[in-house]
Amino acid sequence: MKIIVDLLGSDKGPETIFKGVIETSKLHKDLSFVVIGPQEILKKIEIDNDLRDRLEIIDTHEYILNNEEPTFAVRKKKDSSIVLGMRYLDKGNADGLISFGSTGAVLVSGLLIAKRMENVERPALTITLPTNKDRMILLDLGANIDCTVEILKQFAIMGNIYARETLNKLSPKVALLNIGSENGKGTKVLKETYAALEKENMNFVGNIESRDIFNGDVDVVVCDGFHGNVLLKTIEGSAKFILENMKKTLMSSFIGKIGGLLIKSPMKKLKKTLDYKEYGACPMLGLKKVVFKGHGSSDEKAVVSGIGSMVDFIKKDINSKIAKEIERGE
Amino acid sequence: MKIIVDLLGSDKGPETIFKGVIETSKLHKDLSFVVIGPQEILKKIEIDNDLRDRLEIIDTHEYILNNEEPTFAVRKKKDSSIVLGMRYLDKGNADGLISFGSTGAVLVSGLLIAKRMENVERPALTITLPTNKDRMILLDLGANIDCTVEILKQFAIMGNIYARETLNKLSPKVALLNIGSENGKGTKVLKETYAALEKENMNFVGNIESRDIFNGDVDVVVCDGFHGNVLLKTIEGSAKFILENMKKTLMSSFIGKIGGLLIKSPMKKLKKTLDYKEYGACPMLGLKKVVFKGHGSSDEKAVVSGIGSMVDFIKKDINSKIAKEIERGE
Repeated sequence: MKIIVDLLGSDKGPETIFKGVIETSKLHKDLSFVVIGPQEILKKIEIDNDLRDRLEIIDTHEYILNNEEPTFAVRKKKDSSIVLGMRYLDKGNADGLISFGSTGAVLVSGLLIAKRMENVERPALTITLPTNKDRMILLDLGANIDCTVEILKQFAIMGNIYARETLNKLSPKVALLNIGSENGKGTKVLKETYAALEKENMNFVGNIESRDIFNGDVDVVVCDGFHGNVLLKTIEGSAKFILENMKKTLMSSFIGKIGGLLIKSPMKKLKKTLDYKEYGACPMLGLKKVVFKGHGSSDEKAVVSGIGSMVDFIKKDINSKIAKEIERGE
Repeated sequence: MKIIVDLLGSDKGPETIFKGVIETSKLHKDLSFVVIGPQEILKKIEIDNDLRDRLEIIDTHEYILNNEEPTFAVRKKKDSSIVLGMRYLDKGNADGLISFGSTGAVLVSGLLIAKRMENVERPALTITLPTNKDRMILLDLGANIDCTVEILKQFAIMGNIYARETLNKLSPKVALLNIGSENGKGTKVLKETYAALEKENMNFVGNIESRDIFNGDVDVVVCDGFHGNVLLKTIEGSAKFILENMKKTLMSSFIGKIGGLLIKSPMKKLKKTLDYKEYGACPMLGLKKVVFKGHGSSDEKAVVSGIGSMVDFIKKDINSKIAKEIERGE
């Protein structure tokens, strides 16, 4: 198996991503790598002979920034790491691509270069989140703002297969994000999607409100990209606000300071549980090729975990299973 | 000033709400009350002569439950506390109404009985939330799912006045909830609303992402009822998830347990800061009459604080200011 790793555009720089690749190579002896990034930086890092035989480097300095308009940037920056990587992937020379750079650039280059699977209306970006019971999958987090019933239905189909294969559930519970749990809630599109999902061959459990997603009673939460974005960023904002305020509150009293010291190590553990970037990278579902997006602030360990998720995804041939199910539904 | 208090439909029962009324009567000697609820329960609670002279009781047992379809319930349950209260308010016999019962029932009865201000397309339900700096106001949380540009613009106008009058800011910063902070993000309606708000006579500061609302850099966040609902319930769900997991993590180690004991009191203080029901009740803006909704789980103190917010709102005559500004904009 050969995978492409985009070294550029992450918060911690190309060295961190590359070190993650080195660690991964020790765990997966059957894996070969195409890394895309500045060659002179890689020269400074020691590589053993074992990896050298399995490593190809595509030299580039260019990459797409988070604040660039992705469609424009993907068209213009032909030598950016993500565009070079997607082209390599599209030619069929590798089994998957992972990037820790701009989400928009991954989405747009995936769509324009790797392209959608046949009959898939829109690819969806997923994320795996912790809950009180198991993990759950949320989709879409991509740029799919105005979604039709058909698009949301396909998100559910793809999310269902992905959850079945990766969360080890025979029949994942799939729910629709809404502002009430009863049938008949929400927009016209959501009401119609509800009816459409009831007819689908999956364990559709109805609507779910955003306050209940952490209960762990559902495995897949389906929503359009706008709601997914609001949801995910609200979780991020709330967590930051709560933990910062906690620190402030504890530091304001003597007893609190001592208590704070004592809970430092368990709190670190908790932060890890809460931090979704610890859950590895997540796929963009519905593309012809396997494309994964890791969190921009991933450290070496998160890179290893992210590549590991992708290898698992490729081995399980989840893309073929999605393609088959989407075709069946047409 | 005379205010109506709906005693029914809250989590803690009519006694708690009524005790809140008694406490409020001691703080506001110029206030008289119309309470709506079961007379026999009130008989069991001691009332001094001072309050007795300022108290009117409308006896009813009927109320609208949280899980009832509100439009249907408001039309059918003519003797429910909220319907009786709204009718009393509509007749012009009182200055405001506060309920701690079903949000849907308050929204629908407000709309059907108290009715919209002239030229207001849709009334908006607000909430006041804590941030790292000051408090902020979020609207709409009501049932306004598919909002036009004009509706969102009016939400901004109403929110701006409400923030100016209650947060003591001369020129509140008003922002639009979106999935990116730059102009040109989001749906067609959001792009057009952005353009419309730039022309308004207010301190419109552009888009805000949900992860940034707690920074305290804006005073008013405008969104449609669907996004407001997702946002608020995600905050609720995240806070619950984090605090529960923290408890679990601390209880799993000896040192953690001791630390947990030491931080118990500062954490209680923090929980209070984070808990938006501590911030009193919030108005439904854009109705001809003053209507406030308090949190269903309000205790006696929260009832006092909620009524206090409403009294302040009435004294500042915020409704007239909103009506004038909306009229000016037409």
